[in-house]
This record gives sequence, structure tokens and C-alpha cells, in this order.
Amino acid sequence: MAYKPVPYERRAYYYETDQMGFVHHSNYIRWLEEARLDFMRQANLNYADMEKDGLIMPVTGVTSQFITSVHFDEAFRIVAKLIFFNGVRAVYHYETYLSQSGKLAATGESSHCFLDGVKRTPVSVKTRYPDFFERCLALLDEDDR
Amino acid sequence: MAYKPVPYERRAYYYETDQMGFVHHSNYIRWLEEARLDFMRQANLNYADMEKDGLIMPVTGVTSQFITSVHFDEAFRIVAKLIFFNGVRAVYHYETYLSQSGKLAATGESSHCFLDGVKRTPVSVKTRYPDFFERCLALLDEDDR
Amino acid sequence: MAYKPVPYERRAYYYETDQMGFVHHSNYIRWLEEARLDFMRQANLNYADMEKDGLIMPVTGVTSQFITSVHFDEAFRIVAKLIFFNGVRAVYHYETYLSQSGKLAATGESSHCFLDGVKRTPVSVKTRYPDFFERCLALLDEDDR
Amino acid sequence: MAYKPVPYERRAYYYETDQMGFVHHSNYIRWLEEARLDFMRQANLNYADMEKDGLIMPVTGVTSQFITSVHFDEAFRIVAKLIFFNGVRAVYHYETYLSQSGKLAATGESSHCFLDGVKRTPVSVKTRYPDFFERCLALLDEDDR
Repeated sequence: MAYKPVPYERRAYYYETDQMGFVHHSNYIRWLEEARLDFMRQANLNYADMEKDGLIMPVTGVTSQFITSVHFDEAFRIVAKLIFFNGVRAVYHYETYLSQSGKLAATGESSHCFLDGVKRTPVSVKTRYPDFFERCLALLDEDDR
Repeated sequence: MAYKPVPYERRAYYYETDQMGFVHHSNYIRWLEEARLDFMRQANLNYADMEKDGLIMPVTGVTSQFITSVHFDEAFRIVAKLIFFNGVRAVYHYETYLSQSGKLAATGESSHCFLDGVKRTPVSVKTRYPDFFERCLALLDEDDR
Repeated sequence: MAYKPVPYERRAYYYETDQMGFVHHSNYIRWLEEARLDFMRQANLNYADMEKDGLIMPVTGVTSQFITSVHFDEAFRIVAKLIFFNGVRAVYHYETYLSQSGKLAATGESSHCFLDGVKRTPVSVKTRYPDFFERCLALLDEDDR
Repeated sequence: MAYKPVPYERRAYYYETDQMGFVHHSNYIRWLEEARLDFMRQANLNYADMEKDGLIMPVTGVTSQFITSVHFDEAFRIVAKLIFFNGVRAVYHYETYLSQSGKLAATGESSHCFLDGVKRTPVSVKTRYPDFFERCLALLDEDDR
């Protein structure tokens, strides 16, 4: 059965807008990070703890389509999903909705690798963090495993 | 003959780093905007003037691959290129290099539409800003026209 | 009796840290804005509506002391207070606490003026927005009125 | 004789504006950091090297007055000055000008302490980095020493 956390939700801040009168696109990218870390936290995979355990998960790529503008003070809701994970790479997919109208505001994906926090070299999560590996696998939909 | 502006160049700021010890990926996305507007300025297409003339060019999508980390105070150089333009949509491609080593740090693309700054409705640039249209076309490589 | 809204609370985001390993000081300044607008919203003074009514409230000055570092994922709580308001100028005071330890993380103040959103000239709030004026006055502690 | 570096200069970026149509005040605070690090670099006190040598210089307080708005694409120039330094604390003063009109846009000050980069405890710069100490002292105006 798929892991279904509560979607991440908050309002857009004033300083996130630009002079076009809505949120600057780079901030939608930052929101994906907020949503991803919230998704992990809900699964008891706290990223702050991961880093303390010596594992970092840098972003190796990001893509986003901006469909409906989000304005200051509007609430938005992000549905995050882990769509790929093999212990070497992970890919998240995101859908951002305007909370009030339910309109799709943006879609996005982020790709990640796993590095040793000190040496900054690739880590096989399966070997070095087997418990974390199993718990990440369990976040995938059955057809994504 | 292709338009070849001077690549955009500056150093990474301290506040652009995060606790991983290098620049946060969202800032590479912001740099693309800096590079794009510099590319336009060098072609005498000043975006601030465009907006005053009632034409805005929002970002409809962005994609970026992060290859080599950029650290605080490192100089980087972005080669921007207009790879698609038809008066309704425009696509830019970017390559970000570390100035000192010449290593590729990131690649990216941004897609744009053209809207009336007040009504926020699509504008046919060809009809309403024919001079701007011709000058943008001239920025494309011959095989991209 | 003094207006006592619920303190503003959230966690620090990853992208708000810098390579020192805690939140960059400029973000504490941004948090003050979040706390101020939340303070107003709780008093049914929605800033987004204010702007639609043609009144803007730019920041004319800000000051902040940083006492204890806030780290990624730590929850913080900001107690905001309107300490001066005369319809021409407003001053807010803020105290930021770490939610878990209760330690004081930062203090700050922001000063504001009131401008016509279109003409960008000073507005006498008392004359032009008498209802808003009275409601702001009521947010002051009795000894600050 | 006073140390007189070249003022720090650049243009305001689009993403630094907010929906008021000019640069968000938190970005003026970030600019102070850019100007300070440039001031140090011109004096051959490279902050990136300082951190590698185990010395960090966090911001303990900041204050800024915003006088004239800076708009997208406008060039600004920051005159930074070290006004206090005793090896335990340092204070910088800043004046930000619009390059074209010469108008004063903002003033500001930032206060700093010196910490061991690993232990995060106060460091006596005079004892542990005597050469750095002397070179910082030399940046003060004679009447500030």
C-alpha cells in the first residue's frame, strides 16, 4: 500500500513575490525542498538526523513547470511523492495546488544522490544504512519498487 | 552569424551557500535569470524597458542539472543562448562554468511566454512589438530560426 | 487591555541556512515580516487587502540583534508587538525564541510609513482610512497609545 | 592614512524586487555582506581563507535605514567602512548610493564577533591571529583606532 502523508501546506510570503506581482519562480523550487523534507519527516526520516549520521542528499537536478501564479498570502498545498529510489539515486515528484481553488499551480521533479557528509563521495545507502534503505523503499508505490 | 555576447560572470555570495557548504541549488536557478537579462541587455533589449512598454516575459518552466558544486567566493561564468523564439514562446539554454577550472558546474533551460503587463493575457509579439520581434529573431543561431 | 495574538511559529528551512551551519542573518529579518503580517491577519487587518485598497506600508528601517543561532529544522516562535502607531508611522518590536528550549534567539524592530500604492506619496491613514486607523490604535498597549 | 577601497558596485537583480515594485528590504541587508567581503578582499583579507584557517565572523547585529528605493536593474554603490575593531568585536558602517543619481539609498551597520570555526567559541584574534589582527587595525581610520 502506498505511503500517503498529509500534503505540505502554507501561505506564500510577501518577500517571495517579485515585481510581476506574484511569487518568483525560484521560490517554487525552494518550496519543493520544504515539501520533500516534510514528506520525509512524516515518515520518521528526519533529514537533520540523516546529516548528523553522516549522510547528505544533494540535489543533482530539478525541473518545474509553472502553470498558475501563486500570489502573496495565498495558501498552497504540495503533494510530494518518491517515484524512484535504488539507494544510489532518488527522484521526487511534486504537484503544487492553490488551496482555495484547487487549481494546479506547478509540477516539478528533483533528483538526488547520496554522499558521505565528510568525504563528499558517493555512498551505497543499501550497504551502509540498511534500515534507512528499507524505509525509503517502503515509501515507493508498489509499481515504482 | 550567431550573436555572441560576453558570458555573464560574477562570484558566489556567502548568503547563497547552505549548510552543505556550497551554493543552494535554487540560487543556480536565480543566476540563470541574471545571465538571461544580461544577455538581453548586451543586445540592447533592456528588460526593464520592456516592462515599461507593457510587455512581461514570465518563466513558464525551468530545468537544471547540477554537476559541480560552486563554493562561496568562486567565480562562475554563464553562457546563455536563445534557442527558440517565435513571438509567443521563447526558450533559453544556459551553461554555467567555474571560471578558474573551466569545469561545467550546471546546465539549464528556461521557457517563457509573453504577456500584456496590465491585462496579464498572451501577447503576439510579432504584431504588437514588430521591432522587438525582429531583434529577438536575430539572436537565434541560423539553424534555430 | 492589550491585544495578544498567538505567536507566529514555524521551523527553519534548509535553504535558510548558510555554510556556517545555521540560518543566515538576513532570513531572521524576513521572518519579522512573516510575523508582522501574521500579527495583522489575526487582528483581521489583512495586508493583501490593504494593498488592494491602495495603501502600502514599506519598511523604512530595521534593526536586529542575533543572540542564539537557529538551526535547520528547529522550530522558532516570534512574539510581535506594535509599539508605535500614529497614522503616519508605525514601529513593530519582535522577539524570536527557540520553541524547544525557550531561549531568546533574536530581537528586532521594524519601522514603517504609509504610502499611496499608486502615487507612492505619504498618506494620512487617520483621514483616508479612519476605520483602519482606529483598529491599529487598538493594537497598541494602553501605555503606548 | 585611511584605507580607501573602491566602493562595491552592481545592479539590482529582478528576483530581488517584491510586489511593491522595488528591492525587498532584506536584500539591502544581504548587499551589506557582499560589500563587507569585497572590502576585506581588496585589503587581501579573504574571508573564504579566514574560514579555512578556522576563524568565522558571524553577524551579531544589523541595523539599516532605507531612504530611497532601489529598482530592478538600477546600479548601486556601497561605501563600506570598518569603524570599530578590537580583536573581539568588529563593527562596519555602510552607505548605499544609487550610482546614476548619486542619491543615498540606505545606511546600515553590522556588528560581528570572532569564533573558532569548529568549537564555535570566542577567539581572541590578537593572540591567535596576530597578523590578521594588525591588518584589521590598519583598516580603521586613525581616529577610530
